[in-house]
Amino acid sequence: MKYNSIIIGSGPGGFYSALSCAKQGYKTAIIEKDQLGGTGFRNGCLPVKRNLDVLRKVEEALSISLDGIKETPFFRKNLLINTEKYMPRAEQLIKQRLKDAEIDLYKGEGRFLDKNTFLINNKKLETDYFIIASGTSPGSLPGITLDNQYILSHREALKLKKLPKEMVIIGGNVEGIELASLFSSLGVKVTVIEQLNEILEGTDRDLIKPVLEDLLSKKTTLLTNVEVASAEIKENRVIVKLNKGKNLITEKVVLTGLRQMNIPEGIGKTNVIYSKKGIPVNNKLQTNIPNIFAVGDINGIHGMAHIAIQQGMFIFENINNNQTIKDYSSLPRAMFTLPEIAGAGKQEWELLNMNREYEVKMYPLKNTWKGLSRNINTGFIKLIFEKNILTGIWMTGPDASEILSSSGLLIGKKLSKSAIMDNLFIHPTLGEGIIEALFNA
Amino acid sequence: MKYNSIIIGSGPGGFYSALSCAKQGYKTAIIEKDQLGGTGFRNGCLPVKRNLDVLRKVEEALSISLDGIKETPFFRKNLLINTEKYMPRAEQLIKQRLKDAEIDLYKGEGRFLDKNTFLINNKKLETDYFIIASGTSPGSLPGITLDNQYILSHREALKLKKLPKEMVIIGGNVEGIELASLFSSLGVKVTVIEQLNEILEGTDRDLIKPVLEDLLSKKTTLLTNVEVASAEIKENRVIVKLNKGKNLITEKVVLTGLRQMNIPEGIGKTNVIYSKKGIPVNNKLQTNIPNIFAVGDINGIHGMAHIAIQQGMFIFENINNNQTIKDYSSLPRAMFTLPEIAGAGKQEWELLNMNREYEVKMYPLKNTWKGLSRNINTGFIKLIFEKNILTGIWMTGPDASEILSSSGLLIGKKLSKSAIMDNLFIHPTLGEGIIEALFNA
Repeated sequence: MKYNSIIIGSGPGGFYSALSCAKQGYKTAIIEKDQLGGTGFRNGCLPVKRNLDVLRKVEEALSISLDGIKETPFFRKNLLINTEKYMPRAEQLIKQRLKDAEIDLYKGEGRFLDKNTFLINNKKLETDYFIIASGTSPGSLPGITLDNQYILSHREALKLKKLPKEMVIIGGNVEGIELASLFSSLGVKVTVIEQLNEILEGTDRDLIKPVLEDLLSKKTTLLTNVEVASAEIKENRVIVKLNKGKNLITEKVVLTGLRQMNIPEGIGKTNVIYSKKGIPVNNKLQTNIPNIFAVGDINGIHGMAHIAIQQGMFIFENINNNQTIKDYSSLPRAMFTLPEIAGAGKQEWELLNMNREYEVKMYPLKNTWKGLSRNINTGFIKLIFEKNILTGIWMTGPDASEILSSSGLLIGKKLSKSAIMDNLFIHPTLGEGIIEALFNA
Repeated sequence: MKYNSIIIGSGPGGFYSALSCAKQGYKTAIIEKDQLGGTGFRNGCLPVKRNLDVLRKVEEALSISLDGIKETPFFRKNLLINTEKYMPRAEQLIKQRLKDAEIDLYKGEGRFLDKNTFLINNKKLETDYFIIASGTSPGSLPGITLDNQYILSHREALKLKKLPKEMVIIGGNVEGIELASLFSSLGVKVTVIEQLNEILEGTDRDLIKPVLEDLLSKKTTLLTNVEVASAEIKENRVIVKLNKGKNLITEKVVLTGLRQMNIPEGIGKTNVIYSKKGIPVNNKLQTNIPNIFAVGDINGIHGMAHIAIQQGMFIFENINNNQTIKDYSSLPRAMFTLPEIAGAGKQEWELLNMNREYEVKMYPLKNTWKGLSRNINTGFIKLIFEKNILTGIWMTGPDASEILSSSGLLIGKKLSKSAIMDNLFIHPTLGEGIIEALFNA
């Protein structure tokens, strides 16, 4: 079989790469060794966010109308099991979109035979271009082995059929804190262990405060400056040995923030350069072998689904023109914690570190009209201006990821304070906090 | 007592006018004859949106996790009563913000004595400037008298202690359809009567389709091209006589879309020109009497709360500089229906009417990753481009008002398709539909 492009991996990067090539007329195949959708669409952000979505809705409905809804214990117990109900629909959508674009799907691992040939299920596929989008898998630490029953990655944690009473999450990174938000809200007593000085290092302290307060209100223990020496399974429990303090004995351990690159089989036959850090690419996402490209986590540029999606959407242009990789200076980001954190552009600590002059405008969501009517008592909008120009826009609060989903478009547009004030914001919304932050300054 | 500025009315326009003047150092008083907050913060959009918020959350939580939550009949019955729980908090916030800004509050109607004097509770208040923000009240139709028990305005409809089994809403306008969404979702059998050819005339037909489908699925009857001749109360029922077809007999009638101007008492003493259409102003929001300004609904420019808010925020500048009223060409708008409709800029029908060339890009929310995980099966993003520049951005779907709360900032920024595609959108969000609409075209 002869193709113009073969994509290895059907996660966010691979899926959009395949669509990008196919809609421009390339005869395209996509290869998936596991289940369709990869980490991003299957085991990563989507299921976490979905569960938190439901939890948040129930909590908000309860807070507004306390006598109205009876929450049954059944609900929390079944939330995780229900997650898998959505998977067949995701798989169906992926299959349908591949089919509509006339992309051939091969299930199986296979391996490279040379820089233009891939062998899968005893079939030889030839192609002009390869796009490697094989992503990453959960990694482990020395002294800790993922057994997938007691010591879990996010993949197994999200498929638990029964909630433990207690759980240790190793890693106070974004993944770890998202899972801590989820499991503590489900009633699990969570302990987070972080080796650095701070939980969520590299994130504005104002922004994470409401999240940490929520975790602490749900009896979460946050240990910083602590390393894990080992984790051993004994009599249905895990003994977590720390470099200081007492050992922890718990039901489940979840290891977060560690990824290992999925290097495709037979890559040696192509002479593509790779390492444990992934497959290096130039600013066209091209490897050292000109007809082989790498998109998404595997190229090591940024381990984020929306970057993989964008790299995929533009891969046909990269192959055929001198399109470069994008400017990530206004990169929007979100953490799907409770409440959510989202925004784009600069953070205050970055400007402090760079000794840059800046101005901060903040407004609490509880003082917006919508926040008031929704009983929201935490979170805020935080705007950062440099020389009167908006260079950072951040929010901690419900729906932050949606409200600021297109905030990247606002950064870099050189919006002055008065340009923002001259604009009308829909009323009543939490988004109005942006204009209140400026008006009340 | 001597002031620099006296504001008449404490709704959105008056409240922000008072803050605008006070924070610039004006000694300021605000006068409210009824309850703090006016129509906007008390009887209008906020309570409707709050109830729809709760309903939507419950419906979504139910749809995601069917066995999880038990909805009790108690809930729907108590939703309206609970609305009033939020009112004291709104009043508290208004009072606190007025107090923090050192604004004197006078409760009572009072009247003008001349263009610099107002009499209230037997006190004479003198001022350099008056800002009239007295807003509007529900209006009525010939042959129909609001009795506030059987024939209601939105004010009484939102305070019903007991839901009727059936209800006739006169007016298929925004207010009427928002109330139809609310009451049909609460289980009331609603009939909407509209004298024009279409429900929600002046709104894109694509955008309203999911709303009409939702209403019809909840047994709402939509009558168009029908006028109401009279409504009479007989034996605890209302007989609604139509200009064609059968009479309707119903429990409650809600009259929507009709406003009458609240002209303050004694205005004749000031020589301010006014009519049934309100108090005309120049582009500084100044009346024919130079020290008297009018903001919000009363000046007849636009009957929308966010416009009143903006006019209020800028009133000090209008008084002291040559600030003009704003350009409303990228005006963002929202309808708090189920699902919500929101957006900014041009609509397709406007461009059709003007014979302008344009291009439409649409994407269904159910095919976004977030829509999939939230079980959203209706609604879409609709983008309008003229000569490759974004001139309209619209959405029908949950949270549309929040997702596009700042969309006015995007219109008029001359965003090309490729500028939007080059931007990263937070994943997974419904807002990603914007980039999918372009990618899949």
